[in-house]
Amino acid sequence: MNRRIVFFVLGRILIVTAALMIPSVIVALIYEEGWAGVYPFLVTIVVMVLIGWTLSFHRPEDMTYYMKEGFAIVALTWIVLSVLGALPYYISGHIPKFYDALFETVSGFSTTGATVLPDIEALPNSLHFWRSFSLMIGGMGILVFALAVMPRTESKEVFVMRAEMPGPTFGKLHSRVRGTARILYVIYFAMMLVLVLLLLAGGMPLFDALIHAFGAAGTGGFSSKALSVAAYNSTYIEVVLGIAMLIFGTNFTLFYLIMKGRVKQALKSEELRWYIGIVVVAVVAISINLRSTYENVGILFRDVFFTVSSVITTTGYAVVDFTYWPLFSRLVLFFLMFVGSMACSTGGGLKVSRVAVYCKMFIREIRSSINPNRILPIRFEGKQLSKSLLRQISNYLILYVALFSAFTLVVAIDVNSFESAFSAVAATFNNIGPGLGLVGPAHNYAFFTPFSKVVLSVGMIMGRLEILPVIVLFSPSTWRKV
Amino acid sequence: MNRRIVFFVLGRILIVTAALMIPSVIVALIYEEGWAGVYPFLVTIVVMVLIGWTLSFHRPEDMTYYMKEGFAIVALTWIVLSVLGALPYYISGHIPKFYDALFETVSGFSTTGATVLPDIEALPNSLHFWRSFSLMIGGMGILVFALAVMPRTESKEVFVMRAEMPGPTFGKLHSRVRGTARILYVIYFAMMLVLVLLLLAGGMPLFDALIHAFGAAGTGGFSSKALSVAAYNSTYIEVVLGIAMLIFGTNFTLFYLIMKGRVKQALKSEELRWYIGIVVVAVVAISINLRSTYENVGILFRDVFFTVSSVITTTGYAVVDFTYWPLFSRLVLFFLMFVGSMACSTGGGLKVSRVAVYCKMFIREIRSSINPNRILPIRFEGKQLSKSLLRQISNYLILYVALFSAFTLVVAIDVNSFESAFSAVAATFNNIGPGLGLVGPAHNYAFFTPFSKVVLSVGMIMGRLEILPVIVLFSPSTWRKV
Repeated sequence: MNRRIVFFVLGRILIVTAALMIPSVIVALIYEEGWAGVYPFLVTIVVMVLIGWTLSFHRPEDMTYYMKEGFAIVALTWIVLSVLGALPYYISGHIPKFYDALFETVSGFSTTGATVLPDIEALPNSLHFWRSFSLMIGGMGILVFALAVMPRTESKEVFVMRAEMPGPTFGKLHSRVRGTARILYVIYFAMMLVLVLLLLAGGMPLFDALIHAFGAAGTGGFSSKALSVAAYNSTYIEVVLGIAMLIFGTNFTLFYLIMKGRVKQALKSEELRWYIGIVVVAVVAISINLRSTYENVGILFRDVFFTVSSVITTTGYAVVDFTYWPLFSRLVLFFLMFVGSMACSTGGGLKVSRVAVYCKMFIREIRSSINPNRILPIRFEGKQLSKSLLRQISNYLILYVALFSAFTLVVAIDVNSFESAFSAVAATFNNIGPGLGLVGPAHNYAFFTPFSKVVLSVGMIMGRLEILPVIVLFSPSTWRKV
Repeated sequence: MNRRIVFFVLGRILIVTAALMIPSVIVALIYEEGWAGVYPFLVTIVVMVLIGWTLSFHRPEDMTYYMKEGFAIVALTWIVLSVLGALPYYISGHIPKFYDALFETVSGFSTTGATVLPDIEALPNSLHFWRSFSLMIGGMGILVFALAVMPRTESKEVFVMRAEMPGPTFGKLHSRVRGTARILYVIYFAMMLVLVLLLLAGGMPLFDALIHAFGAAGTGGFSSKALSVAAYNSTYIEVVLGIAMLIFGTNFTLFYLIMKGRVKQALKSEELRWYIGIVVVAVVAISINLRSTYENVGILFRDVFFTVSSVITTTGYAVVDFTYWPLFSRLVLFFLMFVGSMACSTGGGLKVSRVAVYCKMFIREIRSSINPNRILPIRFEGKQLSKSLLRQISNYLILYVALFSAFTLVVAIDVNSFESAFSAVAATFNNIGPGLGLVGPAHNYAFFTPFSKVVLSVGMIMGRLEILPVIVLFSPSTWRKV
């Protein structure tokens, strides 16, 4: 383990990301929040730069690093940035308990969108902006961003990118990290800009449009309204955001292909077809289940589409309180929470590609028990998957199920509702935000004990980084000197 | 596919198993139930023998069969026997709907112990006996039993045994099927006899002792009392049954070793240590969680031990209504439902050995991400597990999770409680019986729609046969002529 490089890179990233607080300072100035609005951010910026400068003062002689260091850098940076990102809430006094501020920040960076704030609308605009901006930062990947704007080092950035990018990769996009990352960011910001313009066209104020564009882009789902998107009571906004969330839950590699003019190839994506298929099946199933509770089929369809889009992309915006839907519909949503968005998007969950491969493994298992001697390879995106990739994907399920069960046991100490406990873990571990029951869209996570809040915060980071980096960071053997 | 051998073997088994109804006829005669008590069984015996005789009239020329045929024979026999075994309930009029009678019979053969009877004590003794006797039959494996008593054929019985015996095998017990099966049955009946004597010594009437010995031996848990084991209000009976259930949930290979004098080797079993470890951890965790609700620590410990033993062995006897325990304790029980008993026992669930291997895979995944270049083999019971066995075990989890989710969606149409739906599927698919909430120990499965009852019946058979045989049976490609 090359410890020095871990702290060196962390330090450099802190300096770069300190700059990401500046927009919030500007918002505080625009809305004339005065010194009370500005100083929590300024203090945080100074702290970040000081720590960053200290850590990266001495450039280590040995600048090489590998997967283990990559994992440790990513997990450590996410944790340190979450602690520092919580300072503005805490210093301003708007979130008086530090573990609450930490939960809210982790929820932002991990693009979860779960909140501990009982009265969201009481926040000043600068903190609202920071809260939603953190979703956007988390969505684009803090480290990949930092590496893309930092001067070139000899570092093997691919190890960082691999640890931070969600989902298994079947393509070769990662080969040139820096170039790729820049192109992806251009796409990300261009789409966000279009979304802001569309929301403005629907009559949404600029500030709200930014908040909701950040929320949709990061598939995070923080809103500045207590009623979330339902507050605007507008079919136009519901449809625009519903489609936007689905787009940000799409594999960004496909947009890259489209930009390169390879539209046909992008549309042929097998993962895309699974994604659309799952959304269609879920919308139809829930609509049939809810048909008697809606008078207007159009409104039924609109609400169901928005909700399905919000849940499968792990965004978490709400236009209806789906906690009161019948169990069948709730369960469909609950299962969508685990499916999650496509790989290489800003969303969470198991990822559509993994679920598709699980389905294929399911079918292969049956076919091979009928014909035990036939060799049945599994193909995805036109390629035959190697045994080691398949093993990795099925092992991920084991990691996932084990940790999910452990988190649920911890949460069960605080609540007595089976549905609330399971969905609280599902909604945080998969980075959705609202769950069912006591953590439904009309509720929040404030009632959990500090211990559970910290555990759920760990769960959100684990979910965002797909488990292993966090475990590697905390394994004593990682830090052993070779 | 050699179709003729499938039907031939089925026919032979039906003739043999028809004899298994005779004890119930004797019970009807002892309790002077008259013609009304006797004729439902006689009619069923005649029907079974007729069908069996018709199917096995022509001995097929080609007597060879392989895994596919073995799977089909096992699954088909279980389904046909469940339909025929339901006749006594239905003909007698004590269960007026056939799907209810089918559910009750499947619940018996699969050693689940879930009931649709709102008033259990209204059953005549002959039907009580048949109901509990079916647990015992299911526990010892219908087909392996039939093959063991049938005249020797050239058939490759190992394929039947492999399909019917639960859990992955790490030893070589299966090499001589017939001999092994007979030794295992001697152990099974000897232990059952000891249990009956112990229950009699505790003051339980002979009939009840038989019923509860069958229930514990088959890890099924049908009782002749509405209050289950709580009806006897006896610490002695609670302790005896609590230990007995754990013993019948133990891998029978170990008893085989002990009989051969290799006690040391048996006690060294890794699966046994996991089994005991999980029971101890669960008892301690629940006892701590419940400590404030009990005045007497001894009684607390007794009830918790009994409940844990009942749930992990997938028996389902109850001395307390654990549905009212706090969520943490309920969740521990819920997870124990999935762990299940040891492999090669009469219990259900994923099996302790699989769970142990999942834990080892979990740890290996973490270790290999810290040291990607190290080869880390997985050992169990002192042997290094082959890649294909590991793949099989991890694929089983995929099959399991997929089917579990599908069953839950079906059940969700009938109930609106998340906890009840999940635990109803967990309690049937894992062959426990009572679950939580609306299907807790004080309730039953009567309120489900006929459709859900049939689906849950399929789930119980799938759980007992470990999924694949049932799917193979219903795959069109199985029946295709080569």
